[in-house]
This record gives sequence, structure tokens and C-alpha cells, in this order.
Amino acid sequence: MKNFEFYNPVKVCFGKGEISRLTGLVPPKANILLTYGGGSIKKNGIYDQVMTALKGFNVIEFSGIEANPHYETLMNGVALIKAHHIDFLLAVGGGSVLDGTKFMAAAALWEGSDPWEILSKRGKVSVEKALPIGTVLTLPATGSEMNGTAVVTRWETKDKLAFDSVHVFPKFSILDPEVVFSLPRIQVANGVVDAFIHVMEQYLTYPVDAAVQDRFAESLLISLIEEGPRVLADRTNFDAAANFMWAATMALNGLIGVGVPQDWSTHMIGHELTALHGIDHGQTLCIILPGLMRVKRENKEKKLLQYGERVWNISEGTTVEKIDAIIAKTVNFFESVGIKTKLSDYGVGSDIIPRVIDRFTKRGIKAIGERGDLTLDEIAKILELQLK
Amino acid sequence: MKNFEFYNPVKVCFGKGEISRLTGLVPPKANILLTYGGGSIKKNGIYDQVMTALKGFNVIEFSGIEANPHYETLMNGVALIKAHHIDFLLAVGGGSVLDGTKFMAAAALWEGSDPWEILSKRGKVSVEKALPIGTVLTLPATGSEMNGTAVVTRWETKDKLAFDSVHVFPKFSILDPEVVFSLPRIQVANGVVDAFIHVMEQYLTYPVDAAVQDRFAESLLISLIEEGPRVLADRTNFDAAANFMWAATMALNGLIGVGVPQDWSTHMIGHELTALHGIDHGQTLCIILPGLMRVKRENKEKKLLQYGERVWNISEGTTVEKIDAIIAKTVNFFESVGIKTKLSDYGVGSDIIPRVIDRFTKRGIKAIGERGDLTLDEIAKILELQLK
Repeated sequence: MKNFEFYNPVKVCFGKGEISRLTGLVPPKANILLTYGGGSIKKNGIYDQVMTALKGFNVIEFSGIEANPHYETLMNGVALIKAHHIDFLLAVGGGSVLDGTKFMAAAALWEGSDPWEILSKRGKVSVEKALPIGTVLTLPATGSEMNGTAVVTRWETKDKLAFDSVHVFPKFSILDPEVVFSLPRIQVANGVVDAFIHVMEQYLTYPVDAAVQDRFAESLLISLIEEGPRVLADRTNFDAAANFMWAATMALNGLIGVGVPQDWSTHMIGHELTALHGIDHGQTLCIILPGLMRVKRENKEKKLLQYGERVWNISEGTTVEKIDAIIAKTVNFFESVGIKTKLSDYGVGSDIIPRVIDRFTKRGIKAIGERGDLTLDEIAKILELQLK
Repeated sequence: MKNFEFYNPVKVCFGKGEISRLTGLVPPKANILLTYGGGSIKKNGIYDQVMTALKGFNVIEFSGIEANPHYETLMNGVALIKAHHIDFLLAVGGGSVLDGTKFMAAAALWEGSDPWEILSKRGKVSVEKALPIGTVLTLPATGSEMNGTAVVTRWETKDKLAFDSVHVFPKFSILDPEVVFSLPRIQVANGVVDAFIHVMEQYLTYPVDAAVQDRFAESLLISLIEEGPRVLADRTNFDAAANFMWAATMALNGLIGVGVPQDWSTHMIGHELTALHGIDHGQTLCIILPGLMRVKRENKEKKLLQYGERVWNISEGTTVEKIDAIIAKTVNFFESVGIKTKLSDYGVGSDIIPRVIDRFTKRGIKAIGERGDLTLDEIAKILELQLK
């Protein structure tokens, strides 16, 4: 096991009716910016629950945060924060609203020349302060409700970039599984596979004798495999929704990734597919991961076999046969929840390959992955394998 | 799943050499009370590592905190805190030193008439402030390094009682697995079974469809079953020590207990055996749990069978046969790491039974456990089954 630091001060309020606790969770006399997306919270009753709990608070609204939140949109929110002397941000939405709000919280207090640096100079500059944030999660998927990371897209240049800071950990996050009841089927399916692949990015690397992290990761994979279809069969199954929601939070709150190598190649390549073709984040991951498993099957052999045995009960046959079966099981799982895994399923052809490679090249990236050895040639190979 | 709140702001610094980070973790200019136990940290080099990292800080020492830390001893520490205007407590030790230090941190700022109330009136009074604490863990076992709970014994009356408060969460805890290298065999064994039974208290109840919590608990049980013997075979096996240490922390940092029923009968009865006979905490748990499993085998049937199947691969036979095998496996595990499970192994006879029942009766306790239905008669039965 590698040395690590684990710190996660988010207060999670989980369960039915927890939105009413907002009254006591938001700082007294806070000047609140309520952030949300396209307005689905007005149809499913969440907006009303939030506003009832915030009676007596000064609330300014900022809506219209889109999927893969745009830097351009968020900077409008930053202007609003400054104009209204906002001192607390309450994000009500899924990962995009939460991520966008984290960026606004940091950008509003940014003292550098341009807040875009927070994303473009990640690792070179650091966010040292941010306005406090609370969240009401409406879509289990990204884990943003319990971490200090955000991903933002600059629409103008199609750059989809991330930043992280302890200062953008939400002070609290309210997770009421009943929000799942009114979600469209595709959003649940995207959430299930997104959480699944968050686990895989921190697990499917090489063994470092980290017993607890491995078994926790496998616990989440099995839970998502079992609970995902249960939720999809009946989105009003409270316990299934609750298990899905908690698994998605645990998948990316830092816990399973401590002291172990991490990959994140699937996300890095997937982000390009979203930026260039607008394919849903979860869908891009299901396209890339099977290709990555094929291309890196020798490199990742030990963890692939462990994953196969402990998650899918695959222990018969030669190594080649077992890994073939493991990849097939994984692809079948994605397809079974309704997420297609080939580029052709999304109307994307082979011209994507040079475009993706070009974008990596322009950023000076030569190789990615847990060993830094997934080359641009191999990325091209992954895309080629997943064409159709 | 039940509604829950999860909040755990402890910063964990895990790994080899992490003690040197103290310099940056302790607040600048802090007036530190360094608390420890019987002085083993002076033999194994941990004291020297700590003092090297604290060069330049003002450090007052308070040593001699015993196993099952005594209220009487700790109140001497409180006097020292007040006399020296201490503003930071650094606990270097195992669960007893950490728990004792948490109590001192709360007692030093207690405004009630008598700090004993913190323990004797738990649930009726609450700790609203405490001095900040940091810890360097020297013995994986209790999980105190990552929770806000402490257990203290009043020697005079043999009362062993607990309290909890968010104000006694350590600000940071340093977990260097190398501390295991110099531990006596019995302390490692006690730590393994203590952590194991912490998990069982939060797991072996009744099912509430909590997929992630159940699988996380099973992950820890399996990890302890596999890693415990590895550490005992070679205490200088770094990875085994690290896995044991991290499993023990995860066993009682709140995570696996959210949204599920909890038992704690084994601890409540075990505490009496320690208070009355001075039997090691871990040993008392190994005496009680098998008896509890026997007495409540019908009440806990579903979780017993799930535990047997997922942790011990027991799935053949009738329910009676399976549960017999499951209890036998559990007892064998305790015995295999060197912890005896019968009262006679510790020279305790049947006179213990009325004494324990009398103590529960005097506190007004009629029944305990996750359903509040483990009666005094059943507690007597558990002790009787475990006589020899």
C-alpha cells in the first residue's frame, strides 16, 4: 500500500424527507445563491421542498446550468454572486450543477488574472479559498456531493477540464433517495455506469496488496450490478434507489482510492467524446472502458482476473478465456442497463480517431494511465476497437 | 435503509514515516500536552520520532494512562492542562490513551458541576466544546483515531462508560503501520478480534436492505480474517500491518454503521468482565459473542446466514447445521489467533453471572441489543454457555 492522506469533512444527510433539514443546515442570515439546471426540480417538487425550507432566507436564483457545465454560463453566475454579495451557494441538481457551483464558489474569490486558470493551470495554481457550498443531490452518479472536485467545459474551445480543492468540499449534502423516483430511465442508467466506472478507474490497475480498498471497490461494483437493474425495473423502489445513491457517493468520495494506483484513462478519453460529439458522460465511459480492457489486458491482467473472480465469479478456463469472459460480462452489464458501447451506436465514425489524438497532442500529452504507459497509439487502438 | 447523518472530519495521514509530518500538523505555537501510556513508546522509538518532529514547540508530558483509562488518572491530566494553559492535546498510544485524551479534552472545558457527568449522564448532557486533539496511533484496534467516541473507567466504582461528541474528533491522526512491528503478539491478536467484533456489532443484527453497508462490513471481516494471521506470522510484514491497521480504523469510524441497526450487547456485557475481572477488552468480546450468537440464533438468523455464506462460504446443510458451523468458524478464528473464548480460560467461575446481572439491574437496564430484547435472563444464559 502507498502512503496516503484521507480527509473528507462533508456532512451527509441521507434519507427520506431530509430536504426539510436545510433550514438548520444553511448558516443563519445567509445570503444564498440557489443554483440549478434546466428546471426539472420545478416539476418534481424538489424546488418547492427547498423553497419551503428556506423561508425567511434571502435567496437569489441562478438557473440554466447545463450538462457539462459551461465556463461561459458559470461566469454569469459569478457576476451575480458579486452583484448580490452572496455568501452561501446552495446547489440543487446532479453532478453538473454541483460541479458548476463549486467552480463559481472558487472563481468568485479568485485573485488571479483569470478564473479559467483554476482549470487550465491545475497543479500549477491552487484554490486557497471559496464561498461555502451546500448541495441537494437530484441525480446519483458523479459523487460530486462528497468530494472536492469539479469538471467544467469551455464551450468556445471544447476544453473539458477539472480542478480540485479542499475549499470546495460541500459543507453538507442532502441525499434523499426519493429524487430517483422521477428521473428519466436514461439518467438512472447513466448514473449507474458512471459510478461503476468511477470505481474501475481506482481499482482496475495493478495490485499493491491493499486488502480493504480492493474489497470496498468490489463491494461497490457488486452493489451497482445488483441494485442498478432493481432501480431501473422500478424507480420508486426506495431501498434500491437508496443503495444506488449511496454506492454512487462512495464510488468517488476518495475512500476506495487511498493508497492505490489510479487510472482515469477512460475518463480522459471519454471527455473528448463528450466535448467533440456531446455524447453523455456515462455513455462515453461505456464506449472506452471495454476497449481499454482489451488493449491493456496484459498490463492489467492481475486485477482483471481478481475482478472477474470476485465480482463475476469467473474462475474457470485459461487466462485468455477468463479475460475474454470478464470483458464480455462487463459489456453485457452496460448493454443490459441500456447503454450502448460502440461509437457507431452514437453515429460517430473513424474520423474521431485523429481528432482525439490531435487534441491530446496539442496539450502535450504523450501517455496516460496508472503507469503513464497508455500511449497515443494505444488510445487510437481503443477507439478503433470500439468503432462498431 | 434508515435515514442517517454521516460526518467524519478527521484527517488521516497513513503510511511509513508519516510521524515526521507532525511539525506541520500541530498548530503553530501550540502549547502541547503530550499524552501516552506506560512508556513503551520510549522503547520502540516512537517517542523519539514524535519529539524530533515537535522540536521548537512547547511540550508538557502526561504519561501513565493505563489500559481502560481511569477517570481518576485523567483528572490529574485535566489539572495539568489548566495549570499549564495547554491548548492542544497530542495523544500517542492505542485506544486507551486516545480515549483518555478525548475525555481530558472535554473535561478541561466542562462547565457543569462535575466532569463525571460527561459519562454518567450520556444522552442527557452533551459536550459542546473540547480542546483540539491530534493522535499518533501505536496499536490498531479500537478505531478511536477516527471517531468521536471514548470509553473511560471509574476505578473506584468499576463503572466503564462511554461518551461521544463531534468536538472530540481528532483534527488529525497519524497511522504508521510500522508501529505494529514492535507490538507484543497478544496486543495484535486483541486488536484483530476487537476490530472484528466492532464490525459484528454493526452487522449481525437484522437485514434492512443496506447493500453497501453490508458488503463493506463483510469486506472488513474477510480482511481481518486474512490479514490477522499474516500479521501474527510476521509482525514486520508492512503490507499486512497496513491492511490490519486500515481495517481496524474503518471498522469503527461510523461508515459501516450508517442507516443500519446496531447491537453493542457484546461490548456492554464485555465491559462488565473487564471492570470486574480486568480481562482484556478484546478477550471479553471473544467470550461473549459466541454465546450471543447461540442465544440469539433465531433472532439474528438472516444475518447469521448471510455472514456465513459471504464471509465463510457456508451454504450447505439445514439452517441449524449452517448456524452451528458458522458459530464454530467464528470461535475457531478467535482461538486460532490465540484468544480463548471461555470464562474458565480466564479463571472466572459461575459467580460472575449474578454479579453482572446485578450491575445491569442497578443501572436500571432491563434489556439491550438492536431490538432491545436481549433480556437479563438471556445475558445470564450467554454467560452460562461460555463458562467452560
